[in-house]
Amino acid sequence: MIKAYAAHNPKEDLKPFEYDPGILGDKEVEIDVEYCGICHSDLSMIDNEWGLTQYPIVPGHEVSGKISAIGKDVKNLKVGDNVGLGWHKEYCEDCYNCDSGDKNLCTNAQGTIISNHGGFADKVRANFKSVVKIPDGIDMDSVGPLFCGGVTVFNPLVQFDIKPYHKVGVIGIGGLGHMALKFLNAWGCEVTAFTSSKYKMKEALDLGAHNVINSKDESELEQSAGKFDMIISTVNVKLDWNLYLSTLKSKGRLHFVGATLEPLDIGVFNLIAAQRSISGSPVGSPSNIARMLDFANLHKIKPKVEMFKMSQVNEAIARLKNNDIHYRAVLKRD
Amino acid sequence: MIKAYAAHNPKEDLKPFEYDPGILGDKEVEIDVEYCGICHSDLSMIDNEWGLTQYPIVPGHEVSGKISAIGKDVKNLKVGDNVGLGWHKEYCEDCYNCDSGDKNLCTNAQGTIISNHGGFADKVRANFKSVVKIPDGIDMDSVGPLFCGGVTVFNPLVQFDIKPYHKVGVIGIGGLGHMALKFLNAWGCEVTAFTSSKYKMKEALDLGAHNVINSKDESELEQSAGKFDMIISTVNVKLDWNLYLSTLKSKGRLHFVGATLEPLDIGVFNLIAAQRSISGSPVGSPSNIARMLDFANLHKIKPKVEMFKMSQVNEAIARLKNNDIHYRAVLKRD
Repeated sequence: MIKAYAAHNPKEDLKPFEYDPGILGDKEVEIDVEYCGICHSDLSMIDNEWGLTQYPIVPGHEVSGKISAIGKDVKNLKVGDNVGLGWHKEYCEDCYNCDSGDKNLCTNAQGTIISNHGGFADKVRANFKSVVKIPDGIDMDSVGPLFCGGVTVFNPLVQFDIKPYHKVGVIGIGGLGHMALKFLNAWGCEVTAFTSSKYKMKEALDLGAHNVINSKDESELEQSAGKFDMIISTVNVKLDWNLYLSTLKSKGRLHFVGATLEPLDIGVFNLIAAQRSISGSPVGSPSNIARMLDFANLHKIKPKVEMFKMSQVNEAIARLKNNDIHYRAVLKRD
Repeated sequence: MIKAYAAHNPKEDLKPFEYDPGILGDKEVEIDVEYCGICHSDLSMIDNEWGLTQYPIVPGHEVSGKISAIGKDVKNLKVGDNVGLGWHKEYCEDCYNCDSGDKNLCTNAQGTIISNHGGFADKVRANFKSVVKIPDGIDMDSVGPLFCGGVTVFNPLVQFDIKPYHKVGVIGIGGLGHMALKFLNAWGCEVTAFTSSKYKMKEALDLGAHNVINSKDESELEQSAGKFDMIISTVNVKLDWNLYLSTLKSKGRLHFVGATLEPLDIGVFNLIAAQRSISGSPVGSPSNIARMLDFANLHKIKPKVEMFKMSQVNEAIARLKNNDIHYRAVLKRD
């Protein structure tokens, strides 16, 4: 039996929950969970905001731990390996996206916490192709958040060929944004943080930003006209996107990893005149997770986390809902 | 004196108009106009739709003709050369965009018909850096429209690295769209035309499309889900852009060269889930115009034009306003 914490209804506290995972699949590994980050999408799934939740749900998709068992067809991983697991626990391996290396875009992929039980537990299982080995030198206690939030902001730098001489902005300095600042600083870029929080304006400089702009101050934005090669938005609120577009260089890109629910009301002239782009992307492929881990290891990049015991999960969730976590909550198995 | 046709007020007919161009600048060439295409933006400028028009305005920025005089600092061009002139008649040559080869994105560029007199005339002048030599083998009578409309649809294929194995759609089969079909066919792509005109559905196949989709038929669009690497929109009307996004492959791009005035109400989830992009671009740089001319020459690509005498300019404009030109109107000097 696997001992987990599950929500049985939207908005309810998580409660201890045991389930029988059955026989380990031939391509599955079982991970002894050591730590598991808490992502905003865990909250969305707990509350069934996307209409995808099957109850009881065991959240948790920023897992770090040790492999405790492997199926007979598992390759490249063995019992005792330090590994992590993110948003996806299995890819179809047969679609165009999987075949071309973009497993994170596989439309048949299985989510770790969608119709499956996740990492707020003593163990979690996943197909070995979605599990990535953690290099020696990386701290297990803070690596979990890299597997979802981290790769979500690292992946666009790879996908859109960001160069070290680029000027890149990050909107929103929270769970994702603070990791973006660290990655971009190590990438060699001139990094600008956009935030409306006075506290974070100061802190952003310590996290890797070279400049800070008040995200709600129109005049500061206007002074940055034509400056950025790319801006990554991690927020889920509506901002004046046309004003942000004007802060991009010619050929610049406004990229969304935060899912604002309101449509983007973009003026097409703002795109045409300077050949600008708008785009979005979800997490990253296992190969880009591996690249990210190597990069993080070399540059000593780790998420800034607040640690809770797994038995304190409801307290951690309440703090996160209150925007009171700097910058990522991580659960440690009791 | 230069003999031209000018509008003196919005919505009025063009009338014969003479002006003294003064002394030829050191870096200027004077072109003996032979032909000049009529672009929708000529109509917008005649009617001052963009608030940029200074009257009297001599429209015309799809010029083909022979150089009749050159200033003392002109290089690479000589009297008698066949040349063309498009949307820009001068670049600043000193900004970041000029320096990096993207002269078409120069924000200090001078428009051929913005505060300058254009090609509905016997002569027109321009800085030699904005004038491109027309290779032997290209017909002078139909090459003019390539200098604005043509390069506007050719340029994105260069900018966004379109491969011959890509599947590309074109929305709107008019002046720009019909040239896009021809270029894309020669580029090796699988080409799909989106049009709501029964007549053009048939004609699009002759112009280079392999497939035709009714641009207003939701079920046809739904059947094309996930098909296209890129869609180029040449129209200026509002369509269901989120539905069009769904017809893109993962990593696909919806690209605007037609300036719809209504904001694009894009759902950000539609961008994130499959890493899709939206973008826009204006005309092309002189170096890409030269590339386009070579490509057009090799592949025998020319715009399909209806020829009018320059003295029939008002008739031609009336037909164009009535959407009754297949596919580009060209004025021939009387």
